[in-house]
Amino acid sequence: MRKAVVLLSGGLDSATTLAMACDKGFACYALSIDYGQRHQSELAAARKVGQSMGIKMHRTISIDLSALGGSALTDRSIAVPTGGTTTGIPVTYVPARNTVMLSLALAWAEVLGSHDIFIGVNAIDYSGYPDCRPDYIEAFEKMSNLATKTAREGNKLMLHAPLLNLSKKEIISLGKELGVDYALTVSCYQADESGSACGLCDACRIRRAGFLAADISDPTRYRVG
Amino acid sequence: MRKAVVLLSGGLDSATTLAMACDKGFACYALSIDYGQRHQSELAAARKVGQSMGIKMHRTISIDLSALGGSALTDRSIAVPTGGTTTGIPVTYVPARNTVMLSLALAWAEVLGSHDIFIGVNAIDYSGYPDCRPDYIEAFEKMSNLATKTAREGNKLMLHAPLLNLSKKEIISLGKELGVDYALTVSCYQADESGSACGLCDACRIRRAGFLAADISDPTRYRVG
Repeated sequence: MRKAVVLLSGGLDSATTLAMACDKGFACYALSIDYGQRHQSELAAARKVGQSMGIKMHRTISIDLSALGGSALTDRSIAVPTGGTTTGIPVTYVPARNTVMLSLALAWAEVLGSHDIFIGVNAIDYSGYPDCRPDYIEAFEKMSNLATKTAREGNKLMLHAPLLNLSKKEIISLGKELGVDYALTVSCYQADESGSACGLCDACRIRRAGFLAADISDPTRYRVG
Repeated sequence: MRKAVVLLSGGLDSATTLAMACDKGFACYALSIDYGQRHQSELAAARKVGQSMGIKMHRTISIDLSALGGSALTDRSIAVPTGGTTTGIPVTYVPARNTVMLSLALAWAEVLGSHDIFIGVNAIDYSGYPDCRPDYIEAFEKMSNLATKTAREGNKLMLHAPLLNLSKKEIISLGKELGVDYALTVSCYQADESGSACGLCDACRIRRAGFLAADISDPTRYRVG
């Protein structure tokens, strides 16, 4: 069985991505990053999601991105917007987050002898984030193939972003078919310890609209609405 | 003054790189990464080196790469070789280390509004490390320019690797001219708490040979030789 490192945040997108990697027959090694995010219940969700899909191993690496500041997700002095999604790059954007997380996935892949990394980025619903676009994913893959011992030895590393061009509706429908238990996932930027969601932040709004559009009942416990 | 983020390990190469960035007139923000390396005295050295050059700010980010294993520098079950440098990729190679460190530098640069990152990689003396080569540096810069909000807004990010094609002899001579106090730096992979060096690992051998070739007295306290 080919090994794959799958970035697993505990949210809806990464849970679906993990299900897709399992479905393709990969032996999955899930990697979660504790980057100082407000919503720590996301990490608890990641563990449950991983267990529910029979992954080979789950590791969580801590790295304090809040020391660098600059995002509402790590800096408590910046409020999470709850007034609805807007255009442009939102304050919930964490500087270079995907680059940092993919770098760690790359490190683990090299240690494991894996040549496949999965990430659940999505260019459609989060088009405000620069590191969720196809040209970025392509450039990271290219860099990876020059960065490691494994790649220098001729093994091509593949960076899979299977949700890149799917709508939230399509992601949820696909995940349902693959048996993802979305009740285990947490999307909210300010989820409480039990995993209940605010119902007002961008992540909640996008999630809720996705379930509605997919005509699938949303198992999330929202505090508002 | 243009701001630059400079990766500062506390070793000879990064100290010289910092001196070069200061000399070019950048306001320097030094970033050290505690990645679980054996040689923690390297981090103490980084603080002293930064202070000696009047940098604007120094941050150390902790990230436990030893959780992923795979390198003699982070995994205590793998011995640091002391028998002399050999060809091929050495066991002291830390998987994706430069990629992880550069990602964090990128994140901080974005928060600071800096468009310049300096790293002291060197393709000649460490040709065994895949992530110390010109094509890797170029690919990382290209990826960076697709990864961030700053870059998407049209600011070109530049990744400077001024030591890339210099020999250790040239690096030391250049640093001396710029006033680097090499007594503050630590290169040894198994330096003790006081910063004294084993004299036998690859880093010690390369450092010692560099000072000899440059005909400059080596201020390092070696335990052997």
